[in-house]
Amino acid sequence: MAKMNAFYAQSGGVTAVINTSACAVIETARKHKDKIGKVYAGRDGIIGALTEDLIDTSKEPASNIAGLRYTPGGAFGSCRYKLKSLEESRAQYERLIEVFKAHNIGYFFYNGGGDSADTCLKVSQLSEQMGYPIVCVHVPKTVDNDLPITDCCPGFGSVAKYVATSIREAGYDVASMAKTSTRVFVLEVMGRHAGWITAACGLASEKEGEPPHILLFPEITFDEDKFLARVEETIKNYGYCVIGVSEGLRNKDGQFLSESGMRDAFGHAQLGGVAPIIANLVRERLKLKYHWAVADYLQRAARHIASKTDVAQAYAVGKAAVELALKGKNAVMPTIVRKSNRPYKWSIGVADLKDVANREKMMPRDYITADGFHITAKCRAYLSPLIQGEDYPPYKNGLPVYTRLKNVPVPKKLKTEFEV
Amino acid sequence: MAKMNAFYAQSGGVTAVINTSACAVIETARKHKDKIGKVYAGRDGIIGALTEDLIDTSKEPASNIAGLRYTPGGAFGSCRYKLKSLEESRAQYERLIEVFKAHNIGYFFYNGGGDSADTCLKVSQLSEQMGYPIVCVHVPKTVDNDLPITDCCPGFGSVAKYVATSIREAGYDVASMAKTSTRVFVLEVMGRHAGWITAACGLASEKEGEPPHILLFPEITFDEDKFLARVEETIKNYGYCVIGVSEGLRNKDGQFLSESGMRDAFGHAQLGGVAPIIANLVRERLKLKYHWAVADYLQRAARHIASKTDVAQAYAVGKAAVELALKGKNAVMPTIVRKSNRPYKWSIGVADLKDVANREKMMPRDYITADGFHITAKCRAYLSPLIQGEDYPPYKNGLPVYTRLKNVPVPKKLKTEFEV
Repeated sequence: MAKMNAFYAQSGGVTAVINTSACAVIETARKHKDKIGKVYAGRDGIIGALTEDLIDTSKEPASNIAGLRYTPGGAFGSCRYKLKSLEESRAQYERLIEVFKAHNIGYFFYNGGGDSADTCLKVSQLSEQMGYPIVCVHVPKTVDNDLPITDCCPGFGSVAKYVATSIREAGYDVASMAKTSTRVFVLEVMGRHAGWITAACGLASEKEGEPPHILLFPEITFDEDKFLARVEETIKNYGYCVIGVSEGLRNKDGQFLSESGMRDAFGHAQLGGVAPIIANLVRERLKLKYHWAVADYLQRAARHIASKTDVAQAYAVGKAAVELALKGKNAVMPTIVRKSNRPYKWSIGVADLKDVANREKMMPRDYITADGFHITAKCRAYLSPLIQGEDYPPYKNGLPVYTRLKNVPVPKKLKTEFEV
Repeated sequence: MAKMNAFYAQSGGVTAVINTSACAVIETARKHKDKIGKVYAGRDGIIGALTEDLIDTSKEPASNIAGLRYTPGGAFGSCRYKLKSLEESRAQYERLIEVFKAHNIGYFFYNGGGDSADTCLKVSQLSEQMGYPIVCVHVPKTVDNDLPITDCCPGFGSVAKYVATSIREAGYDVASMAKTSTRVFVLEVMGRHAGWITAACGLASEKEGEPPHILLFPEITFDEDKFLARVEETIKNYGYCVIGVSEGLRNKDGQFLSESGMRDAFGHAQLGGVAPIIANLVRERLKLKYHWAVADYLQRAARHIASKTDVAQAYAVGKAAVELALKGKNAVMPTIVRKSNRPYKWSIGVADLKDVANREKMMPRDYITADGFHITAKCRAYLSPLIQGEDYPPYKNGLPVYTRLKNVPVPKKLKTEFEV
């Protein structure tokens, strides 16, 4: 293949380490200047490709690219913009290929979750049909940990470490206050469809009685009476109760609890926030004093407490993506392959995108205890390696030093605009 | 003074470093075994003294005590239990002295905020009147940073570092998503009466345009229209808007916004959570997509990102408290004295408790910009040194290792029970 440029874009919700993968893609491409010209990034994800708003990463000094390794969020911007089937979104796919052709782009690296794996596959297929074959490699990323085939997803390990650390710390706080003040603490975490992040909270509890005492998973229908009975039992045994709850907790009608009726003074539904609902329930029914926290973006942006394992894996998949592309592997995704648990060993594998796209990996039922309120030893054995090691960012003035890129635009070549 | 035992108790809301002060008190006392016998701690704070539920810290190995340096929360339990004036609470004060006498306690170290400084002073006064003089030293602690005389309060610097780091990180996240998704992010932080923690969020913004863009202080009456106009302007200039809001934000009627009308499906007032109210307002009035987070206990328990300066000061006041007591200084509190800003230099001073008790240090108006939405350079110069340096806890299995003490009770000597 003649020397061609590469395109890289970030997709969907960002993570503490998606930029680590970006760093790896760019640093690895820079080592192969004989084969890869420039790496262009999409400003605000795939939208940047559709609107021909490309960023020339070659204008960034090596120190800026190295800084991405430590920087949370998406350095080029990400987007929630789903390309549908080839039939429904043909104009979008054709536009992508038109832009790639205009900028001599022969490699497409798409850094995202399930939807972007699907897009990546379709770009590969259509580009072939259109006589401009592009090597398409998906770089896995999602805090939801729900991509198939890969043992885990870069981004998840760092959220997992953050929530486990945070709920452990809050547990020490609540334990101190329980005699005269707060008895129940509720931490709400992400994961609308799968309980991986909720499960990670459970890692903080290593011995009988250690918080969190109760986990509320999106996989387990919320049973108010059973839950309240467990809270009472926990208070009786330990004097306090720490609860981790998924934002995706549902009642028996399949409705999200967070949408089950909290209204403001004007009668508007209040969106988001299952933690206050659980906390209010504890107050109304058990008359216990509570506190609650909603970690929201703090959890997926918490680069200051990233998992070293996660950072290494995020870098490894970015590097592998470029190496796979250089070998002409098309419509693939590098994966994390677990070789052993203790000691934890992993390597990089390869999955065909047709096996990845549009498939979600749910949490196995046997990762949740029979009563539905905690994780099993099997779950712990799976999760524990993913939070191992610290990878602190540099600090200045007492705060982490994160990188803001120059994000210099590539001059446009096409005469047509494209509406997104 | 003959060799006597010491009593130590933790009071009010705990912090990431109150145990660091406990560690210092115990380690320093252990170095003066000629003068101080045992250090007894109050289980659940002063309640432990009233109920004669004392903990014998001499039963803890040195490694456990050293571990306190890294452990958030209150290792002996804290409480929200306010002793009032001598007239109103005379029975309590007399009981304290009765318990101290029974256990040969000659030193009283009380680790807390303004209320406990007042209690400490009264114990000193009454013990003298009752002919059993106790040397009383208050050890300052409060995330609210509102004690007078001392330049800052141990506990505050670590919360400040946590909120500034967290809002910076979330800012990187929101910036990535703003094109197609979240435009506005709201982080709620503690500080019901004074805006010190809200102000600390502002440290994350070091250059024009960097988040947080708007801070909502408890000192500044919330003006909905002015606020929304500022959000719109920020979105226009930067594409997104990050907001730090104090839990103590009030409307023009002096009412907490968090209590201004959010109701659940049953019409019950929902307590707590000004962030969702601000976020809802942005959605209703500006039709912008938002996310919000409530850090709650996570912020004051976040030992994993404690400020090294704060840890050093928390240790120093604990150590100084014992040294002051050994010199016979009574009814005093060690303080932090700022010697210079750049480089930051500090030393330990001494304040008389009569000058400390029942006085709150509010944030000066000139620490807040004229428009009321951010911090001034003067505020930054004050705050910045307090978050300098990292002091990471040890890790095991990917999580911080915190210490749980044995908390062995001291056999009771009194025949009377005391109801609290």
